[in-house]
Amino acid sequence: MDEISLIRHFWEPLGRAVTHPTVREGIGNDGAVICCEAGQDTVVAVDTLVEGVHFPASIAPYALGWRALAVNLSDLAAMGAEPVCYTLALTLPRADEDWLQAFSDGLRDLSVRHGIQLVGGDTTRGPLTITIQVQGRVPTGTAMRRGGAVAGDRICVSGTLGSAGEALKWLDASRADNPDVRAVLARYFYPEPRLTLGAWLRERGVAAIDVSDGLISDLGQLLGDGGRGARLDYRALPIAPELDALAGSQARELAASAGDDYELCFLWPLDAGKVPESTDEGVPLTVIGEVEAEPGVRLMDGERTIQLASAGYSHFSGESDNDG
Amino acid sequence: MDEISLIRHFWEPLGRAVTHPTVREGIGNDGAVICCEAGQDTVVAVDTLVEGVHFPASIAPYALGWRALAVNLSDLAAMGAEPVCYTLALTLPRADEDWLQAFSDGLRDLSVRHGIQLVGGDTTRGPLTITIQVQGRVPTGTAMRRGGAVAGDRICVSGTLGSAGEALKWLDASRADNPDVRAVLARYFYPEPRLTLGAWLRERGVAAIDVSDGLISDLGQLLGDGGRGARLDYRALPIAPELDALAGSQARELAASAGDDYELCFLWPLDAGKVPESTDEGVPLTVIGEVEAEPGVRLMDGERTIQLASAGYSHFSGESDNDG
Repeated sequence: MDEISLIRHFWEPLGRAVTHPTVREGIGNDGAVICCEAGQDTVVAVDTLVEGVHFPASIAPYALGWRALAVNLSDLAAMGAEPVCYTLALTLPRADEDWLQAFSDGLRDLSVRHGIQLVGGDTTRGPLTITIQVQGRVPTGTAMRRGGAVAGDRICVSGTLGSAGEALKWLDASRADNPDVRAVLARYFYPEPRLTLGAWLRERGVAAIDVSDGLISDLGQLLGDGGRGARLDYRALPIAPELDALAGSQARELAASAGDDYELCFLWPLDAGKVPESTDEGVPLTVIGEVEAEPGVRLMDGERTIQLASAGYSHFSGESDNDG
Repeated sequence: MDEISLIRHFWEPLGRAVTHPTVREGIGNDGAVICCEAGQDTVVAVDTLVEGVHFPASIAPYALGWRALAVNLSDLAAMGAEPVCYTLALTLPRADEDWLQAFSDGLRDLSVRHGIQLVGGDTTRGPLTITIQVQGRVPTGTAMRRGGAVAGDRICVSGTLGSAGEALKWLDASRADNPDVRAVLARYFYPEPRLTLGAWLRERGVAAIDVSDGLISDLGQLLGDGGRGARLDYRALPIAPELDALAGSQARELAASAGDDYELCFLWPLDAGKVPESTDEGVPLTVIGEVEAEPGVRLMDGERTIQLASAGYSHFSGESDNDG
C-alpha cells in the first residue's frame, strides 16, 4: 500500500465518520479549510505518543488510536473548548492493514463520541510515533488560562487518581483475568477526556489543567508564576477501589505523583460557594487542598508533611524518568 | 534539562520572535488560543520529517529547523494562504543544548521572514522526528482546491525542478567545495516556500500543488478525480544551471520525477491570457504542458513518449522507494 492507498482506505473513511459544520474542506488538498465563526476563538493543542516511551510495544492498536486522541481531547477539556477537528501525523514502520484498521477504529469510536472530525494528516515511515493536533472553539475571550490562583481557592479534582500509574506495573497483562488489573488497565488505555466538565468550568471562569504528568507536577503548572503555593490533603486524594486493592498503602503516593489519569484539576474560588459533589454526568468532584500564599506544593497527612520519591513524569530529566 | 526548562530556554523565546495579531494566547497553557476573524477561513496543514527517511542523520540542525517549517509553509503556499501560526511536535533522543539552539535558530529565521508565530508544541524523547502543523488564513471561500482541471489549461511551474533530487547524491558533502554541489544542496536544505506566488494564484482562482513527491506524481494529485490527463513537454522542464552541470542528460528525468523542490505547479486557464514570465519577486514561471481529456500523465519529447524508471516518491510502496 502506498500513501495514496492508505488515505483512500483508512483516512478518508475516518474523515467521513464525523462531519463538523465548520469544516469546509477536509482530507484531499494540501491543507484543510475551516470556517472562522464570529464570536469564537480557536484553541489548538498537540501531543505526541512515542512507542516505548508513552505506550508499550504490546499495546492493542485500537487502544492506541483511542488513547492518542483522548490525551489531546483532554487538553481541549482543560481549556474549556468544544472539539472541532484534528489532524493525524502517523509514523509507522510498515503499513499493516489489520493494524491500521484497528488503530483507525479506535480513533473513530472516540471521535464520534465527541464529534471531532479528522481533516488531514501525514503518514510516514519510521519508528512508531503518533502526533495528533486537535482544534476546538470557545466563545471569544473565554478560554481558560493557568495562573491567577488566590490564597484560599479550593483545589479540586475530578474522578479518581493513580489508577493509570498502577497500570504501568501490569502492562504485560499476565494477570488480565483479575478484575482489578483489568480496571486499572482500562484507565491507562482508555482515558475519558473530561470535556463536559471543562466547558462547565469555563462558563464559571475556573482555571483547570489535566493531570497528565502527575498531580503535584501539574498543579505546580496550574498555579503558574504568581508565587502562590498549595497545601494538599494526602488523605483526601480520591482513590478507585481497584487501586486500593492492588496498591494498598502506596495508592495515595501514586495518586499524588503518577500521571496518565487525564482527570481535571481546578481551582474553585472561595466566594463561588460549595463545590458540587459530582458533575451532571456523575463524575465525582473532590476538594483535595487549598491555595496558600507560600510558594511550593505541600502534601500533608494531618500536620505531618509527606515526602515523595518522585513528583511526576518529566522528559529528559535523567535516569529516574518514568518511561512506562 | 527537563521539558519545562526546554520550554523556557528555547520555545518561549522562539514564540516571542514573531507576534501575530490574531494570537491571543501562545505558549504556556494546555492549548493556544487564536482569534477567529470574520471574513476569513483557517487553513491547516501538517508534515512530518523522520531522520533517515526525510533527511540524513548528518543534517545541520539549523537546516533541519528551516526545512521542517519550509515544507509546511509550502503547503500553505499551495492553498494560497497567508501564514498565521504553527505548533512544533519534536521527538529527540536527548536534549543537547547546542543542537536545540541551532535547530530553533533555523526555525526562527524562516518564521520571522514569513511572519508565522510558534504557539505551542510537545517535546518528547525518542527517535528524531519533527511534526509541524501550520495554520494560515484566506478570505472566506477562496482557498485553492485540487481538481477542476479543464482540457487546454496550461500546466505551469515556478522556479526550476530536479536540483533537490540531485542533492540526494551529494548529502555526504564530500564535494562541498564544488559550487554546483553547494547550489543543489542549498535547494535541498533550504527550500523557499512560494507564498507570494500562492496568494497571487489564489486571487486569480488558479489551482496549485507544491512539488514535494515529484512533478508527475504531484501533477496527478492536482488533476484530481475528474478523469483529466496531461501532456508534459520534456524539453520545457526548467532546469537550474547547477543541475545541468552535475546531472547532464539525466537532469530532465530528475526534474520530472524527483521531489523536494517545493516549487508550485499550477493550472492556468486558456482564457486567462498569457502566463507571466516571472513573479513580481523574479521567480521564473514556465509553461511545461497542458491538460488533456485523456487520463494519465504523458511525458513527451516531441512526438516520442518518455518512460521513466520512477514517477516519484511514495511511502510504503516497496523496495524501490527513494528513501534519501
